[in-house]
Amino acid sequence: MSRFGVHPDQSVASMTRAAVAEALADAGLGLDAVQAVYFGNTTQSALEGQLMIGGQIALRRMGLQAVPVFNVENACATGASALHLAIGSVLAGTAAVALAVGVEKMNVGDRARAMAVFDGAYDVSDPDELVRQLDRLGGVTDTAALGDRSIFMDIYAAFARAHMKTFGTTQEQIAAVSAKNHAHAVHNERAHYRTAMTVEDVLRGRELAFPLTVPMCSPLTDGAAAVIVTNREAIPSAAAARAVRVLASSIGTGVDRDLDDYSRHVAKLTADRAYDQAGVGPGDVDVAEVHDATAFGEILQSELLGLCEPGAGGPAASAGETSLGGRIPINPSGGLESKGHPLGATGLGQVYELVTQLRGEAGPRQVDMARIAVAENGGGFFHGEEATAAVTILER
Amino acid sequence: MSRFGVHPDQSVASMTRAAVAEALADAGLGLDAVQAVYFGNTTQSALEGQLMIGGQIALRRMGLQAVPVFNVENACATGASALHLAIGSVLAGTAAVALAVGVEKMNVGDRARAMAVFDGAYDVSDPDELVRQLDRLGGVTDTAALGDRSIFMDIYAAFARAHMKTFGTTQEQIAAVSAKNHAHAVHNERAHYRTAMTVEDVLRGRELAFPLTVPMCSPLTDGAAAVIVTNREAIPSAAAARAVRVLASSIGTGVDRDLDDYSRHVAKLTADRAYDQAGVGPGDVDVAEVHDATAFGEILQSELLGLCEPGAGGPAASAGETSLGGRIPINPSGGLESKGHPLGATGLGQVYELVTQLRGEAGPRQVDMARIAVAENGGGFFHGEEATAAVTILER
Repeated sequence: MSRFGVHPDQSVASMTRAAVAEALADAGLGLDAVQAVYFGNTTQSALEGQLMIGGQIALRRMGLQAVPVFNVENACATGASALHLAIGSVLAGTAAVALAVGVEKMNVGDRARAMAVFDGAYDVSDPDELVRQLDRLGGVTDTAALGDRSIFMDIYAAFARAHMKTFGTTQEQIAAVSAKNHAHAVHNERAHYRTAMTVEDVLRGRELAFPLTVPMCSPLTDGAAAVIVTNREAIPSAAAARAVRVLASSIGTGVDRDLDDYSRHVAKLTADRAYDQAGVGPGDVDVAEVHDATAFGEILQSELLGLCEPGAGGPAASAGETSLGGRIPINPSGGLESKGHPLGATGLGQVYELVTQLRGEAGPRQVDMARIAVAENGGGFFHGEEATAAVTILER
Repeated sequence: MSRFGVHPDQSVASMTRAAVAEALADAGLGLDAVQAVYFGNTTQSALEGQLMIGGQIALRRMGLQAVPVFNVENACATGASALHLAIGSVLAGTAAVALAVGVEKMNVGDRARAMAVFDGAYDVSDPDELVRQLDRLGGVTDTAALGDRSIFMDIYAAFARAHMKTFGTTQEQIAAVSAKNHAHAVHNERAHYRTAMTVEDVLRGRELAFPLTVPMCSPLTDGAAAVIVTNREAIPSAAAARAVRVLASSIGTGVDRDLDDYSRHVAKLTADRAYDQAGVGPGDVDVAEVHDATAFGEILQSELLGLCEPGAGGPAASAGETSLGGRIPINPSGGLESKGHPLGATGLGQVYELVTQLRGEAGPRQVDMARIAVAENGGGFFHGEEATAAVTILER
């Protein structure tokens, strides 16, 4: 994983190469061992005009020899989708070694343009429908008033207000998630931001859409992350002791449901499937990276993953249950809010963190005795929920 | 497969739904049987602003229930790439039934814009390199002089001239390919063009870049095609008699090579791998659909696939060997030149034709006793060759 941040000196190709080279070195494999590549990126097409074959272009100087490269996109769940397909090709036996790599260079040109591109993750053929969905949630109705923020912040804000109304979640609890994640990122040298913030600091931030302030929202980040997936036989003996086992990888697409019906939320359906596949339950999970594009997202997802009871996500954060040293540490990396959110890389960056944790190599942010880890990566918006949810379960 | 053509009244979503509904009906399955979806599209992002989750949006009114949808892109080889991943998920056991669907609505707004988008399939970070590569092949050096044609026509023209120099291929032979494909398409009610042309008609067409005239080049086409992939157990008994077996699916990325080294061309490397996987050779092939984005492309690919000896592709077309009734019928559908080339749908449209042929349901364009069929789909450009080649082998 590259250091996430704002990197005007780096390109999609250079970040891709760095992440891939590091992943290969870590696995003790050469590029010639790789038999399939899944490349995740969402914005290079619109921001840089590389409209097609972005993966082939990013990797072309590395010397792949007639190996298939697939360009994969699933909005903010792109990274986990690339990983899922890499795992699939190993299960299928079409590749003994597969590479998933995700990358995003979002700080290109002006910020408003990047925000507009970011917002291409809902049904653009029917923008009025988005407004109707937000209305039902009590969200913004004037999309022209967005200014330089993403509409996704308003979507999250609307969901947060609905959750506050249903469960009594407070703005202070949401701020506690952000403060916790900022505290975690201080110990992560690859994080975009490494500045500790108190709950009060977070609440004092500029309000984007009530209850969300700027520090509760993920920034525009450049970065890349890569994961090597192999079958058991293809693991070099020198790397075997540090290999991590994939117990489950499950992906689902959002369904039509009542907005307050959390039992049919795609993240819950997908997580349930992943737990079944892995043969473990939420109570077995030692550490999780979840998709906190906003701090409220972490509260919602921690409940949908069963790590907290419905409505208990906010109080759990305030009580320190989800902090390092707590009952179930969430986002020890600093999460999307503080580690950063380079869309195509995000899901793979979560796995990078969990692999580091399961290996016991996370240094000052190490979760004690981490054996089972869960990553949850979400992307896009429709039917009043995320369009894609991805859950990956790993075991030391 | 939808009828390919210019369809101002159709959207990406409506064409997708039509192709998927027809494929499901043909297989005797409901959408609830589908466990994974691979959606191929290349231009909707740039042409319509649906920058992300295009597949989820196109399918959302159909009622998928938490099934994964993956957006896949590999330039003009997108359709075969989606199919490869659908096959992979069935092999992996993660889906008993998978759906590959490809779609393109290229006739959106002005033609020059569509052409510019089409041309986003080479390394846009280094346009001078493209000119250098074309120079080596004796191609255009003034990309500003392209007018309303795609740079890919100039790329194909440069390759054609190199082939003419090496093997003595003639413009008349290239025209014979186009005339043959136009003749085939007369019998295909789903083809974009159904007008017979003689070799003389083709040669009289407006010259885009010597030796290519307009009728030798694929048009801007709207269309969709879908394929259902299952394991043996998931085939409904009523559909079993018409099911077609996948013998091989191989995809490769272009390699650095000398431009006249056809032995290391990615299409040849990929085809060799596919034949190995299928346990058949080029001599066993009864019918082929190959990527004739230009008529010269068919000549080149027929040689790389081993259907003709190196340099023999042009004479074979002139002698009628690749026509219906000939030694090895190629592009009985009319090919990209006449059936049309809706990028994301093209590779799946090839498979639609071959499945129809293997079932013996192709009517007046039926290839006698067709038992083994090969599809070749290529996309993008770098290293002086196509960036991606895909070869699929099917058996009745």
